Amino acid sequence: MPPAPDLAAVQAYLLDLQDRICAGLAAEDGQAAFATDEWTREKPAASAGPALGGGGRTRILTDGAVFEKAGVAFSHVTGAALPPSATAHRPELAGRPWVALGVSLVIHPRNPRVPTSHANVRFFATTGPAGPTPPVASAIGHSSLVIGHSSAAAAPPPVWWFGGGFDLTPYYGYEEDCVHWHRTARAALAPFGEELYPRFKQTCDDYFFLKHRGEPRGVGGVFFDDFSALGFERSFALLRAVGDAYLPAYRPIVARRKNTATTAAERDWQLYRRGRYVEFNLVQDRGTLFGLQSGGRTESILMSLPPLVRWDYARVPAPGTEEHRLHTDFLRPRDWASEP
Amino acid sequence: MPPAPDLAAVQAYLLDLQDRICAGLAAEDGQAAFATDEWTREKPAASAGPALGGGGRTRILTDGAVFEKAGVAFSHVTGAALPPSATAHRPELAGRPWVALGVSLVIHPRNPRVPTSHANVRFFATTGPAGPTPPVASAIGHSSLVIGHSSAAAAPPPVWWFGGGFDLTPYYGYEEDCVHWHRTARAALAPFGEELYPRFKQTCDDYFFLKHRGEPRGVGGVFFDDFSALGFERSFALLRAVGDAYLPAYRPIVARRKNTATTAAERDWQLYRRGRYVEFNLVQDRGTLFGLQSGGRTESILMSLPPLVRWDYARVPAPGTEEHRLHTDFLRPRDWASEP
Repeated sequence: MPPAPDLAAVQAYLLDLQDRICAGLAAEDGQAAFATDEWTREKPAASAGPALGGGGRTRILTDGAVFEKAGVAFSHVTGAALPPSATAHRPELAGRPWVALGVSLVIHPRNPRVPTSHANVRFFATTGPAGPTPPVASAIGHSSLVIGHSSAAAAPPPVWWFGGGFDLTPYYGYEEDCVHWHRTARAALAPFGEELYPRFKQTCDDYFFLKHRGEPRGVGGVFFDDFSALGFERSFALLRAVGDAYLPAYRPIVARRKNTATTAAERDWQLYRRGRYVEFNLVQDRGTLFGLQSGGRTESILMSLPPLVRWDYARVPAPGTEEHRLHTDFLRPRDWASEP
Repeated sequence: MPPAPDLAAVQAYLLDLQDRICAGLAAEDGQAAFATDEWTREKPAASAGPALGGGGRTRILTDGAVFEKAGVAFSHVTGAALPPSATAHRPELAGRPWVALGVSLVIHPRNPRVPTSHANVRFFATTGPAGPTPPVASAIGHSSLVIGHSSAAAAPPPVWWFGGGFDLTPYYGYEEDCVHWHRTARAALAPFGEELYPRFKQTCDDYFFLKHRGEPRGVGGVFFDDFSALGFERSFALLRAVGDAYLPAYRPIVARRKNTATTAAERDWQLYRRGRYVEFNLVQDRGTLFGLQSGGRTESILMSLPPLVRWDYARVPAPGTEEHRLHTDFLRPRDWASEP
């Protein structure tokens, strides 16, 4: 029998990653600091929906010199019964108690020449069989929970996986930024197998695509889900490689663009394009919908939404403009890591 | 056998209603005019998803003196197979060809003292049995389509209904406005039965409720769906009564508030509260999700989104302020029509 996943080690890594990312972004901002909001909640089984407990540490920077809103959230959530939205591709897991740990972040820069970035790294495990009176996890907010030691003799084996990745959403396209972003991702994954980057890059392109617009959300990156193929230790190492690569992927791009002169028209375009981010997160994003449906903490889930957004009816940029070039040259699948 | 529904009469009413509402709102604005965008589209059966055809006349006013964005859309859409999202409470209709006609509007005023309003009136009918090669309606954009005369001998009877209503979303609460809004709705429905207003008011309260916020979207109004109880002629008269009542319900409120002095802080609150509107429409609204899932025209569907919106993390108004009073006194179910 393989060793049980080490939830405490995952949690320690995630909290440290959150601190390191916040420190790096605050240094890049140079003006604003992250505020910290620790929260716990427990939803009793008697209320509507399955019992749900959780805790988290939300860190948010607002109105910085460089970042208009930067949210970096750690959360540790347990539930008595997995909702259907989380198990679309694994219907046999519906109804099981579960635990989810993760760091999720969305960074909305002020300057339209700096792209928005998103990253998350997370660990998920079921903690027992489905049933009318499932063993609700009581260890909320710390990680002494032992996975896979259910007392029910006929309990199915525990299921666990890692997921995550990062993707980039520019308002104005710079090819060298996209190349740097993707090459950093490719280098982080290379020790785990050369086939992973193209596979995770494709998953990212497929996932961050606005169906109702027929349009990618941005220039992609890497994304993986339901990953346990390398066993716990090596899969966890892969998660760390991806988490650790986010700051080296993003920060140089921010540094390069943050002082670019910009105009009110460019700001307007940025606010308009941010609308696509809202549309994706509220209409399609599985994590957002899972959180809202499972009774998660709304403020932490919707921290990803941009600070200021506009919608215009049937807005189409004029051919030949940089705004038009974003659509034609950047918002389409490209093999960025192999660009010359 | 009851007479077939008169699609041409419904369409003529809806187009005239759209004109009258636009004329009334433009007069109230006094500065900006509605632009008209006529569109048709046909999605061939060979593309992803069921065959879909449609046409519409979208009218939109932007950057007015009073209205920052006012969209009033007429649409006439036909589909070869009803998607599951439209038939949650009538699974037997899934897969049938259908036609939907409607006027839908959302008005976003500039002054935070003027509430946002939403209304729609619509007619829906299936036009044949479900099947691998359904008789796709070819009469797109005009109303010669005859409902219920399918050539298939074993075809189920046609199903049709009316739906609609209007609801109000203030940023600052005024009790007299809420009372006027609800009394206008009650008076419009009274000729069709005294029980309808309380029933439709309750449906509106139930529907326009943000589950993930535990919060009503606004102060409600009336809303009904799947309505055919009075037969075609009388049900259509009820639809007209509701459609005709919208302008007398809304315009006096706009006139009363549009010149109220306002501050930057109130504007900020308005932009923040508009975020709730976006959340509701993109996460919960059946019409929006049906439209996006069925391959509808995205620009017309998302015309309802506010022109400018902000999200702030964990924003809570201070007790004693007007912003706080919106939550405590207005964003809860109240029997407005019976207020003294």
